[in-house]
Formats: sequence, C-alpha cells, structure tokens
Amino acid sequence: MPTIDLNSDLGEGFGAWTAGDDRAMLDVVSSANIACGAHAGDPTIMLDTCRAAVERGVAIGAHVAYRDLAGFGRRPVHVTPDELHADVVHQLGALTAAAHVAGSRVTYAKPHGALYNTACADPVPAEAVVRAVADVDPSLAVLALPGSELLLAAERHGLRAVSESFADRAYEPDGSLVSRSRPGSVLHDPDEVAARVLRMVTQGVATAIDGTDISVRADSVCVHGDSPDAVAMARAIRALLTEHGIDVTAFAPASPSAAASAASSAASSS
Amino acid sequence: MPTIDLNSDLGEGFGAWTAGDDRAMLDVVSSANIACGAHAGDPTIMLDTCRAAVERGVAIGAHVAYRDLAGFGRRPVHVTPDELHADVVHQLGALTAAAHVAGSRVTYAKPHGALYNTACADPVPAEAVVRAVADVDPSLAVLALPGSELLLAAERHGLRAVSESFADRAYEPDGSLVSRSRPGSVLHDPDEVAARVLRMVTQGVATAIDGTDISVRADSVCVHGDSPDAVAMARAIRALLTEHGIDVTAFAPASPSAAASAASSAASSS
Amino acid sequence: MPTIDLNSDLGEGFGAWTAGDDRAMLDVVSSANIACGAHAGDPTIMLDTCRAAVERGVAIGAHVAYRDLAGFGRRPVHVTPDELHADVVHQLGALTAAAHVAGSRVTYAKPHGALYNTACADPVPAEAVVRAVADVDPSLAVLALPGSELLLAAERHGLRAVSESFADRAYEPDGSLVSRSRPGSVLHDPDEVAARVLRMVTQGVATAIDGTDISVRADSVCVHGDSPDAVAMARAIRALLTEHGIDVTAFAPASPSAAASAASSAASSS
Amino acid sequence: MPTIDLNSDLGEGFGAWTAGDDRAMLDVVSSANIACGAHAGDPTIMLDTCRAAVERGVAIGAHVAYRDLAGFGRRPVHVTPDELHADVVHQLGALTAAAHVAGSRVTYAKPHGALYNTACADPVPAEAVVRAVADVDPSLAVLALPGSELLLAAERHGLRAVSESFADRAYEPDGSLVSRSRPGSVLHDPDEVAARVLRMVTQGVATAIDGTDISVRADSVCVHGDSPDAVAMARAIRALLTEHGIDVTAFAPASPSAAASAASSAASSS
Repeated sequence: MPTIDLNSDLGEGFGAWTAGDDRAMLDVVSSANIACGAHAGDPTIMLDTCRAAVERGVAIGAHVAYRDLAGFGRRPVHVTPDELHADVVHQLGALTAAAHVAGSRVTYAKPHGALYNTACADPVPAEAVVRAVADVDPSLAVLALPGSELLLAAERHGLRAVSESFADRAYEPDGSLVSRSRPGSVLHDPDEVAARVLRMVTQGVATAIDGTDISVRADSVCVHGDSPDAVAMARAIRALLTEHGIDVTAFAPASPSAAASAASSAASSS
Repeated sequence: MPTIDLNSDLGEGFGAWTAGDDRAMLDVVSSANIACGAHAGDPTIMLDTCRAAVERGVAIGAHVAYRDLAGFGRRPVHVTPDELHADVVHQLGALTAAAHVAGSRVTYAKPHGALYNTACADPVPAEAVVRAVADVDPSLAVLALPGSELLLAAERHGLRAVSESFADRAYEPDGSLVSRSRPGSVLHDPDEVAARVLRMVTQGVATAIDGTDISVRADSVCVHGDSPDAVAMARAIRALLTEHGIDVTAFAPASPSAAASAASSAASSS
Repeated sequence: MPTIDLNSDLGEGFGAWTAGDDRAMLDVVSSANIACGAHAGDPTIMLDTCRAAVERGVAIGAHVAYRDLAGFGRRPVHVTPDELHADVVHQLGALTAAAHVAGSRVTYAKPHGALYNTACADPVPAEAVVRAVADVDPSLAVLALPGSELLLAAERHGLRAVSESFADRAYEPDGSLVSRSRPGSVLHDPDEVAARVLRMVTQGVATAIDGTDISVRADSVCVHGDSPDAVAMARAIRALLTEHGIDVTAFAPASPSAAASAASSAASSS
Repeated sequence: MPTIDLNSDLGEGFGAWTAGDDRAMLDVVSSANIACGAHAGDPTIMLDTCRAAVERGVAIGAHVAYRDLAGFGRRPVHVTPDELHADVVHQLGALTAAAHVAGSRVTYAKPHGALYNTACADPVPAEAVVRAVADVDPSLAVLALPGSELLLAAERHGLRAVSESFADRAYEPDGSLVSRSRPGSVLHDPDEVAARVLRMVTQGVATAIDGTDISVRADSVCVHGDSPDAVAMARAIRALLTEHGIDVTAFAPASPSAAASAASSAASSS
C-alpha cells in the first residue's frame, strides 16, 4: 500500500493564547511539528501537545525557530551561526525531554517561518541548524523543501533528509513557492486542495500558477494548521487519500510499533 | 583522602547582561549550578557555560527555577504543580542538550531562588520538581537543604538526595538559614568563611548566629557566585581545604574518568 | 434619559495572537479597557485598539496589570508597592501616548485579573496602583468593585471612584462575586444576562446565587470580551437597554463633545 | 561662557541585571539617554533613573530602540514602519510618564544601537521614528549624527534637530564613524579622549583615523556609559572642559530654571 506523511504546525499557543485546533489536527496528520518555545509554545503547551500526539500515534518533530515570540518567528533575527546553533540545541533539548516524558521521542526537526526560509536558501544558517541537530541527536531527520540548503546540509552531516510539498500553496513554474504577497499564493478550497495533494502523491505532479504541470515529489505534505479552514482542509485531504488506498503514516515514527499502531489507527479511523 | 564538593550558581547572565565572573569560579568549584533560561541564562550562555565547565572537569547541574526573568527567579510564581513540572522538564531538557553538545552530561538538579525556598518547605512544589527530574532522568541527583521536602521527595522517587550547607550564610540554632533581611545573615570575610567551611567539612559543625555550635553535615558546600567578593571567598575556601588535605571534587561527576581527571586537576592546581 | 456605561476588556492579543473580536465589541460598548502590554497587548495592538475606539467614540481606559505575559496577568506577582507603582506608571504612560496619537486620551484606569483581585481586597496594592494613577494624571477615574480598597484609595487621593457590576457573573448574597471555580459562577445565556443587566440598571437589583435579591448599583457594567458568546451577549444587553430607553454612554468620555457625539451615535445606531 | 552638552546612555539594566555606574555618570553628564524598556530598562529602573537625573538637574532623553531585550537592541528587527512608529510611541509614552512622576519631563529622543544605525542611514525608519516623536510631543528634540536621515526627518517635521559627536570613537576622513570591527575604532585613554573632546568643542575639529583633521561640529558629545573606563573618561572630559571655561549644560533642559540650576550645580561641582 502506498503511503504518505501529512505534517502540520502544532502547539503554537503561548500562555492563555491559542492558535488553531490542535486536537482536531492531530486526529488527521501523521507528523506534528511542535513549537519549541522560541516562536510559540511554552513548557506546558509543549508537554500537552506531545502527550496528545503520543495518544494518537502521531510522530513528534521539533519545529525550531528564531527566538522571537513578539514576531511569531516570522522575522529573520540577526544571530550569528553560533547563536543560532545554540538556539536550536536549546529547543531540541527542551522538546526531547517533553517527548520523553510523554512516552515517545522526537524523530525529526523542521525549521519554522523565517528560519525555514533563510535556512532553505542560505547555506550558513542551514549549516548552523543542521549542526545543532547532528550534535544533539544524529538519528533525527530534517524536513524541508526539496533541494534546499537545509537538506543539502543534512546530507552533508549524514542525517536523513526528508522533502516536503505544500498542500495549500501555489507553486511557481520552477518549483518554488509563490510569495504570500501575491494573489493566488494560498489555496482555500478543501476539495481542490485534496485533489491537488492526491495528484502530488500519486503522480508527483502539481499545476503551477501559470497552468503548467511541474514535478512536486516529496516524502511529506505540509498541511497548515492555523488557517480558518485548516481542519476541514486536512480532513478532506486525508479522506481522499484514504479513499484512494493511500495510507497516511509518519515518515519517521517514534518506533516500528508506533508506526504499526499509527497505521492501524489510520485504518480504523477511515 | 577526605573530599567535599563546592557548588556555585553560574551562567546567570542574559543576552548582553552578565552576572559574576563565571570563568574564575569554574576554576575553583567542582559543581556548577547552571541557569536554564528560566530565571537567567539563554541558549548561548548555557552552552558556553557547559563548555567552560567541561574544560575544567566541573560537574554540571541544572539550576531549575520559576520562569521569571524580570524577577531573577527570586519571586514565587503562582503555577500549578503540573505547570511547574512542565517548566522543570523544559529546563532539564534544554540543559541536557547543551551539556551533551559540550561533551558531558547533567548529573544533578538544584532549584534556584524562590523555587528552592518553596520546594524545600512545601511538599507540593517539591513533588512537582522531583517528579520532573525523575521523569526526565532518574539517574540525576537532587541537591538541596538537609531534611528538606525536596530531599524527602527525591528519596520517595528513588533519586539520590544530596544535602548542602552554605559557606557564607549564618545559621539559626535550629539549623535553618538566618533570613537575609536580618543583619549578620551573610558573611563577607573570606578567611572567616574559609575557616567556617573547613570546620563544617572536617567536624560537621558550625557556629550559629547565637554563638552555639550546631551540626551542619553536608555532601556539598554552596559558594555564592554573584557577590562582589565571590571569587576571593571561593579561592580562600578551596585553598584552605586543599592545605588541610581535603580534595574538592564533584559529588556527581559526569563519569568516573571525569572524577579522576577533576581530582588530578584539583591536585595539580593546588 | 437614563444612561449606563458598558465596559469591556479589549486589545488583549500579543503579536500574532488574538483574543476576542475587538471590532465587534467596540461597536457595542461605551468604554474600552485596553491592555497596556503587561498582561497582553503590544505597542501596535495598543495603538490600533485606541484608533478603533476613537473611531467609534468609545472611551479609553488603561487596563493595568501585573507584568506577566506568560500568565495573562491572572497570577499575583510578588512585587513591592514601589515596583507596582512603577509598573502602573509605565503602562499608563504608554497607553496615554497611544491614545493621544489616536486623537483622544485615557480617561480612567481599571486593574486587570489578579491585580484587580488583590487591589480590590488589599489596601497595600490598592494604594500603589492609585498613587501611580494620581501621579500620572489626577483627572483619571478609577473603575472597580463598589466598596473595594481600590475605590477607597481613589477617594483618598481625590480621584473619581467609579463602581462597576458584572453582566455575566453570579453574585453571592453579600454582593461579592461567586468564585469562578464554583458551578453557576458565570452566566452564558444572552437573553438572561441582558434581562439581568436591565434590572441592575433600572432597579439596582440582581438575584444572587441563592435566589435572594441584592442591591447591585453601579456606574458601569462589565461585559467580558473573551468568552465565545461575548459579542452576542454584549449586543443583546445593548439592544435591550436601548429598547427600554437607556442610553449606553461612557462614564468618562474623552471630552464633552465626544460624549455628545457618542450619545448621538448611540442614539442613531439604535 | 561657551557651553557643550555631554550625553550618555543610562538605565540600561533589566531586573536584577545592571549595566554601568549610572549614579556616577549622572554626576558628570548633562543629558541622560534613558532606556525605555525595549532594549533595556524596566518600569522600576526607568523611574529610578529619571529620579536620579532630576536630582542632579540632568536632562532626560528617551533612548528609543527596537524591541529586543535578548539582543540589547543591537540587532535590526524587521518591523514595518507602522510597527516601528507604534514601538516608539509606546516607549516615549512610558518614559514621559516616568519623567513626569519624577518631577520633570522628557526633552529629546535619541535612537539606540541598531535603530540609531538604520534610522541615521535609511529614510524609512528615520521617518517612522520621527513621526512617532512628532505625534507624541512636537516640542521634543531629536539627537543624532550630523547630516543623518534622522535629523533630516526631524527638520521635515519641524522638530529641533540636534547633532552629536562621539568622544571615544574614531572617525573616517569623511566624518563617518570607523566601524567597531576595525582596530582603533574605539579610544580608551581618558586624557587623550578629553583632549579630543576639548578640541571638538573649541575648534570643531578632530583628527581622523588617517591623521587628517576633519570638521566635527556638534551640539552634544556622546560619552559611552557601559565601557569599563566610562566614568573615568567622562570625568576627565568634564574636568578638562571646565578647566577651559566651557560649561557642560543640557542642550534641552527640562525648564529654564532647571538649566540655570544645572549650570550652577556644574559650576559648584567643578
């Protein structure tokens, strides 16, 4: 049976503030990118989100970010490579402990927001991030854009490099994402997005914003968690994939048994 | 050869702000209580302080605290036991990663400031803190006041309970510390403090504030790091102990070889 | 025509996080308790909320709080009276500038959350808060529970003391609020709450949780802004008051002309 | 009698952390650039520093900055012009209240660190900062590099534009500052710096790093407050200026009487 991973950004509240319906998303996705307290998340939210993920057999990834609660990690922060390395070490360590206490473990890292953008495009922050991941736990995978500096750095460090595509983002003909500032950059219709993801997964192809078909092959599909229609969209994607015999399962499960459990849970929930 | 541990609070800067001369203190003490970002410390400072400790064979302890940078952890924060548990899990995890990247590991936890006070006196926060330590790593020791709720909780959870005395604090006749608000509560003369520590270590006795001798037996002696005379006082203590054939060595070294290395380093530096 | 003020807590987001539908609430209430950055709010949100209030002729109050973003100001913070005084000075100053830039001014202060509770009950924080208000601008009113230490302190300092009742909170027979931890402490039905407020305003009476009628006379009614039904409830209250010829108008308008404009706007919108 | 203003960055602690010897510097300078809580400072420190300045007749300026405690305001933060405007409004308002409570008022604004650099060089942040100053209080002066975008914006908005030179920084032949990353960019010898300042003030000339003399005419001389030798250097400057009959007095005193008082205090202390 063909499989695909669905990943989503979760645990992005802070104190009394919430962001998205994490429980509902965790019922749909197979991998949770959990905020580590730098752009969002706090110790209680991190532990609660890890527990909710473990209960559902969802894999736990560290959604590492620039330290910038005020900017939600969406602004590049002018840190040195060593500062960035230390920031990522800190976040990985904190989430590792939370995942452990929740009865599981972190299996991958994915940068968030501005750090995702800078570290996909620029080898210097990419190296700092990946060096931190390798230093903390070389068994972790790195999840990012295909062909990005992040994945190149991961390969250089002997880490597993995992590529992702985006369910609800328009692509340029060259395979890059259409800037959010342009109209049509974000897709909103759950059925359209679900069909798009099905085609990505089964054919490795998506229609770019200019109408041409491009190759979009990935090990995981990112489903955003904080848009108003996030849950509806994620459910539509999972339902359509399941309907077509595609199993939604983590690319890096916490353990073989967890993978099996996730698979059977996915089967029973469909 | 008799031995004693000297512990000190280190890594208590934040960003551009510093607190104390960490490098100088690390040349004297055998255990570093390293701030974990809650009351002080940030990812870069934590990693740098771990590295400086490892270079000197100094054991690394997690100086866990209430999350309160504005109050330097000196104010009790009204958290629930579960929030406190999550806060400590987070801090232990972050420092664990930093210590690992620095080439060593965390071997004990010691609460800081207001958390030290509340968790020594009250079994509820004591249980929350110790449960977090046990959940993250049951091989960690807990360092606190003899007879405190913290050490009782540590024993309940099967953790190693390590007691400490204070080099520069006056004691009440019942063995408790004289409140900082009272005159004479803090001692300042390096020679007087060194002689006092020597007597604590060799005889297990100290003169209380009323002039009577009380039993003050402990596995470690806390040397404060942020007073103006901190380094001079720590050096005087170590010199006098060494002169009397007492080896300053960590109660929980990162490894037997580290202990040996620390011992030989201590020997050669004296 | 009889009048009453409706006040609500607004501007309680932080960075990317939001709390409640401020625009909708500002269309209903006459006084906005605007968060000042201590428990919620940031410079951009404060200025935007002031502008939105000014556009609608809504009076601006400083919702001063303990400095505790992580706890949303719901936890008492162990500050000295002088620290609390300085905290309130800071918040009043920051909101004063925002209100001025938005074309209006702050006309009252109301403590938030834990500070409301401690400063209503305890004369020491009450004095610290009111001293700050008097020091910054003695023309400001203080809004709090009738008979509270806050209002006593306001009178002592020669400030205008304004009492408030709560639209959606159950009362004890002695006129205090039923603790949120008890069932039935918060009312949820918009029609029931609207009828309750009408009776408070026209008769000065409310039914306490034991079924007896108690005196609840106040210059302003607090309508909470962050519950799921907040907007529906506020609209129901205003509609019923208007239907009964009661004008919803600020107890402390920014200027006589603003009061007139608010009154005519209220009249025309009804 | 010729006069000059000496300005210095003060109030740059946070919570338990301190930076520099503010009291000693306040005994020497005539204008205090007081941190407003964005890069450093907190409500208590701001109020205390204002009071200490008022006691000594020192003028109070708002040292506005990017919101970045972790980076001490030394990193440009990617804010929009409207966010920067709101940040500056907030800081000016908070310090205005503190200065008022301390018995004086803010008379000028000077950006700090990265904001100083970006807003001196780039008209967009310069406009955002100056628009905030003009919106809050058009009687405030703006203190910055001669010919900078900040001073151009100040003139455009009808604000008083005040230029400053730097006592301990080397100049390029074109009058710009030598980058801190280059050797010789910062001067350390108090006597050399004092002689340099005397020449700046009396002749409007300084020797550039290439040995040529350049014109360095300014209304104020910045004396840094956080270097180890800051106080010694400031005292040497003031002593030499006084010796040569130059009165150290604020360019923007809080009031004519304050100016007179400052002048007489300067006279009597010399």
